[in-house]
Amino acid sequence: MSDTPPRGFGREEFAARTAAIQMRMAAQGLDAILLMSEAEVRYFTGFHTQFWQSPTRPWFVILPAQGKAIAIIPDIGAALMRQTWVEDIRTWAAPNPADDGISLLVEALSGTKNLGIMKGHETGLRMPLGDYERLTRALPDTTVHDATSMIRALRMVKSPAEIAKLRHICAIGSQTFAQVPDFAQAGQPLEDTFRAFRRAALAQGADDVPYLVGGADQGGYYDVISPPSTRPLTRGDILMLDTGATWDGYFCDFDRNWAIGTADDASRRAYDVLWRATEAGINAARPGTTCAQLFAAMQSVINELDDAGGDVGRLGHGLGMQLTEWPSHAAWDDTMLQPGMVLTLEPSLSYGDGRTMVHEENIVVRDGAPELLTTRAAPDLPVIS
Amino acid sequence: MSDTPPRGFGREEFAARTAAIQMRMAAQGLDAILLMSEAEVRYFTGFHTQFWQSPTRPWFVILPAQGKAIAIIPDIGAALMRQTWVEDIRTWAAPNPADDGISLLVEALSGTKNLGIMKGHETGLRMPLGDYERLTRALPDTTVHDATSMIRALRMVKSPAEIAKLRHICAIGSQTFAQVPDFAQAGQPLEDTFRAFRRAALAQGADDVPYLVGGADQGGYYDVISPPSTRPLTRGDILMLDTGATWDGYFCDFDRNWAIGTADDASRRAYDVLWRATEAGINAARPGTTCAQLFAAMQSVINELDDAGGDVGRLGHGLGMQLTEWPSHAAWDDTMLQPGMVLTLEPSLSYGDGRTMVHEENIVVRDGAPELLTTRAAPDLPVIS
Repeated sequence: MSDTPPRGFGREEFAARTAAIQMRMAAQGLDAILLMSEAEVRYFTGFHTQFWQSPTRPWFVILPAQGKAIAIIPDIGAALMRQTWVEDIRTWAAPNPADDGISLLVEALSGTKNLGIMKGHETGLRMPLGDYERLTRALPDTTVHDATSMIRALRMVKSPAEIAKLRHICAIGSQTFAQVPDFAQAGQPLEDTFRAFRRAALAQGADDVPYLVGGADQGGYYDVISPPSTRPLTRGDILMLDTGATWDGYFCDFDRNWAIGTADDASRRAYDVLWRATEAGINAARPGTTCAQLFAAMQSVINELDDAGGDVGRLGHGLGMQLTEWPSHAAWDDTMLQPGMVLTLEPSLSYGDGRTMVHEENIVVRDGAPELLTTRAAPDLPVIS
Repeated sequence: MSDTPPRGFGREEFAARTAAIQMRMAAQGLDAILLMSEAEVRYFTGFHTQFWQSPTRPWFVILPAQGKAIAIIPDIGAALMRQTWVEDIRTWAAPNPADDGISLLVEALSGTKNLGIMKGHETGLRMPLGDYERLTRALPDTTVHDATSMIRALRMVKSPAEIAKLRHICAIGSQTFAQVPDFAQAGQPLEDTFRAFRRAALAQGADDVPYLVGGADQGGYYDVISPPSTRPLTRGDILMLDTGATWDGYFCDFDRNWAIGTADDASRRAYDVLWRATEAGINAARPGTTCAQLFAAMQSVINELDDAGGDVGRLGHGLGMQLTEWPSHAAWDDTMLQPGMVLTLEPSLSYGDGRTMVHEENIVVRDGAPELLTTRAAPDLPVIS
């Protein structure tokens, strides 16, 4: 496993991120950007807490045209925000339905002509829509612009310190998958396999396992996003586990397949096609290639068995502080790969009577061949005996 | 520990929830409600997956004036949604930035005069704001109303089957906290204590531990939402762990405090005040009491040591599919307690030079005395020797 990198980031990293976005803001004529989502707040401030799990309180960060981010946050977060590089921290006693930070926002944004917020693809509004409407009514001279592409362009390319964290959690994930044959066996209810996997990932050094899905069924599984059933693993099953474990707030996202006891020919064939489709993706992932081209490289192999396109909607995506980030390996995504992008390669196909299979590896785009963050899956479907 | 209840819910439970909301919709003149958040989608359909961890795809459910919910969801969720009681499932190949379900929504909502969505306190918009604006522009004859209070009134009172799940995860949480003195000791980095806690909770039967925060410092901690540091536990520390573990998608949410080796007088005093404040809350939690009165009952005890109000903003909240739900035990919340509400009682105070302490139990409001779901904390600050 890789050496454990330091937690957090140096202040120069936040300064560089802020300078980079402010250069883009100047080019687009934005006076400020209002952020409120976990990943973006953390990206520009370093504010890192599981408290986001509670939907009760909104959290706001304003990126001004110059200078550090301004935090407008509930009192309960002040002590933690003071440990970050942010200096201007304004708080209120939240929750307060009558005014959950809105008057502080109005005061801070007063005079802002052109305000960016994230309202594009793969975003949400992490504040009450009613409060957002109150805010914009209180700022009649402010025009709201979509800042999604600006933030997306920045966050898609990871820094060396971010890549070190991603490499670490991918190594933990690989080590955990390597142990599955030690703790999964016929007769074990799938929910116990899941629980054993989580415990193994924590033992390997993961901070948390926020995402674990999978399936197991005779001769192949039908669904890739279900929680575990209590059905025992049975000889002849194909078992798939797909995990997003985290270390210091960064995700791995990959899966592995196993046959229980014996592997049927159709599943072995599907596995082989997906393994080679992944290989095609690894070979295609070069700076200057588009996501659409990367998609086509994988799909051309998948077509040997399934040319219907499947249910997943794409063959991989970006990876970082979120389990899934931009871009998408899909025919509609013309994003050009750049060194430092961290991506999943995730070919999938349907076979037999509606069975599905998925494969996944995590890579960093580099000049030349990509760096594989995950230990490459075995070329043949492994059998747990 | 309580017997393990069955996973999921019977169809009659979804039918009852749907009938209850449709009665309220009729009274308010709503033709439909559009839902998109994890808890609400699950509440009315039974669709349960960790795939919500991925922010990429929106998920929509329409509650019509009559009949079952209509699911408008990405292809990848169709197999899982077909296992629920929902029959009308419309899907698209997501992600698709050009049309991520919007034309399907417009078609389904065409002719809707009065549409409810959740835009009130403690909600967010789990779809791109830009897409929401496109949707409302495409439905010029539709008036959007805030359905938050209607959904809130329903979800706040839990069914017996929901309470059984909450009782089970609270028992798992209590059992895990009881083991902390076995695995936490002086010299252990706090991040290892966290990891050991997660593993113990899983071993006790938790499905997941999505929330674990805490602190430890000499003579008391300063912050209650931080991730763990690498600082070793030290004799004279006060250690606090606060967890939201889940079973079948329902949370416990409570914390415990310990002194490492020896307990200082100020911390023992603070603990005693909070234990008695919790007792006052348990005694006050009766049907007909308001949250404001419950707050006052706890605050009057806290005032012995701290009358400044603290940073948390309230002294507890609702609990269920979310770590924090309505209502809030705060001076501004006039919600009247009803049998079947599941609540946290969470008094907190500041003491010494800015130290903080929190206490928490989980209860069900019953006719007469509440049912305690958590094993009551020890009346004196426990010392781990």
